[in-house]
Amino acid sequence: MTETTGYSGSGFVHVKNPHLDSMEEDILYHLDLGTKTHNLPAMFGDIKFVVVGGSPNRMRAFAQFMQRELGLGAGEELPDISAGSDRYAMYRAGPVLSISHGMGIPSISIMLHELIKLLHHAKCRDVTIIRIGTSGGLGIEAGSVVITDRAVDSSFRPRFEQVVLGDVVVRSTELDKELAEELLACSREIADFPTLIGHTMCTYDFYEGQGRLDGALCSFSREKKLEYLSRAYDTGVRNIEMESTAFAALCGLCGLKAAVVCVALLDRLEGDQIQASHEVLWEYQQRPQRLIAAFIRKRLGLGPAH
Amino acid sequence: MTETTGYSGSGFVHVKNPHLDSMEEDILYHLDLGTKTHNLPAMFGDIKFVVVGGSPNRMRAFAQFMQRELGLGAGEELPDISAGSDRYAMYRAGPVLSISHGMGIPSISIMLHELIKLLHHAKCRDVTIIRIGTSGGLGIEAGSVVITDRAVDSSFRPRFEQVVLGDVVVRSTELDKELAEELLACSREIADFPTLIGHTMCTYDFYEGQGRLDGALCSFSREKKLEYLSRAYDTGVRNIEMESTAFAALCGLCGLKAAVVCVALLDRLEGDQIQASHEVLWEYQQRPQRLIAAFIRKRLGLGPAH
Repeated sequence: MTETTGYSGSGFVHVKNPHLDSMEEDILYHLDLGTKTHNLPAMFGDIKFVVVGGSPNRMRAFAQFMQRELGLGAGEELPDISAGSDRYAMYRAGPVLSISHGMGIPSISIMLHELIKLLHHAKCRDVTIIRIGTSGGLGIEAGSVVITDRAVDSSFRPRFEQVVLGDVVVRSTELDKELAEELLACSREIADFPTLIGHTMCTYDFYEGQGRLDGALCSFSREKKLEYLSRAYDTGVRNIEMESTAFAALCGLCGLKAAVVCVALLDRLEGDQIQASHEVLWEYQQRPQRLIAAFIRKRLGLGPAH
Repeated sequence: MTETTGYSGSGFVHVKNPHLDSMEEDILYHLDLGTKTHNLPAMFGDIKFVVVGGSPNRMRAFAQFMQRELGLGAGEELPDISAGSDRYAMYRAGPVLSISHGMGIPSISIMLHELIKLLHHAKCRDVTIIRIGTSGGLGIEAGSVVITDRAVDSSFRPRFEQVVLGDVVVRSTELDKELAEELLACSREIADFPTLIGHTMCTYDFYEGQGRLDGALCSFSREKKLEYLSRAYDTGVRNIEMESTAFAALCGLCGLKAAVVCVALLDRLEGDQIQASHEVLWEYQQRPQRLIAAFIRKRLGLGPAH
């Protein structure tokens, strides 16, 4: 069974669940929000950009950065909107919502189900969603930023397999091509790091699933690892992470224009361990943030970044 | 390809990776620890119990609780050993290490790879590892605690499929039977909540994967949902969570005696939303902690809990 994506002209988010209408209350448990306890349209109705990433500290830093970039105040503490849950952290800066999603497909998928319902309940329109993350590069310099044109699974196929009541449903992992091109155009104004478009491979595991030789378990040789990663490279894969296929599939089905922008912390053809210093890694992690800030400023007509 | 489990007589943790010996340094990136930067045997060599759970706040609370239970001090702040990473949180109280693992198989598997290498580098012996978590119950009262005798996948099979270089490897999800019985015996001394042994189903998703009607997407009827959950119940499944198969498989392969103890936050045959108050949920989440504290006190010869 294959499902089709859900873009349409209204600009609203599409929840595809006939049961939701008959619910008296919808508790977004892992976000610590709900339709009876919170006025979601008032809190979130004007959100136009949702930026998600794995780490809660990074997503707080991004919200603070956006606050400065949008001229909304300088460095005051932003409250964690989901503070009552310690599963995810959520911050807002003007029309930008910044949310952490943890690591891996199951973790991001819980967040996305509840986020999509949140955007639906809040009657948000024309929302763009971008995942900013870290990744392992393939044949690219550490610190390069990859804009994903296609999220693929560990067999290099552009598909996501979702289990529904014990059966596998295959979903498309198409991302928005125009958005990817728009982001690439923005990157040309940021000269101090390389940005490219490429395929992104998404795995269920950081060690064996990504062919690392340094996990607690490893049953393969360095040659087999390199043979696998080279095959991935030859199909167009330029980085590897752990959320993009599920992110692309869920956002596509719900009519959200979506992009994935990840920095490579190392080149996996060279090694497995992340050995760069905290300072270097911190600067790398700011690169997708700077690119997205430039994009949002441009969309809002604010001109080049400060 | 099926692999066998790795229990043996030495009591050491088994890393099954011939490449590790040739590494000059091992950086446990997501734990913010390493063999060159930290004296792991001095820091962790005497650890006998590792308790893991999804939420960082809960695992801090558990470490503080254990500190009191073991008479090691009353309520002072415990430092987060992995504070330099915001992926996981780690605390210790005497011989007990308490670590968060986030949500889902990919997230727990990253932590376990690095934890198992940590226990190996630290030369720990005779370590018992227990996952304490929250879950959806099946045909049991909310607040019941389930000790897992068998972790099964969404087709009710006791197996975990790990992708290695693009190929699927099938792993056993056996847990330690004696440990489960020992935990059940401890539970008989705690009268104020029900504890039972049952199968635990592990899924990759909280919404569609667990047959919930309240996600952003839902393509099935209430009848189909109940038919699926009833089939699960009939095979012996008593609760549903998102980590147990990978946890059982990895711990089993590395020779760690492992158990899974989860409280049910609701009965999924009755509903999908978690509607209990924060206070009730907080008390539920303390139940596995109290059971594990009683177990550890007994193992250490400390007599019944305060």
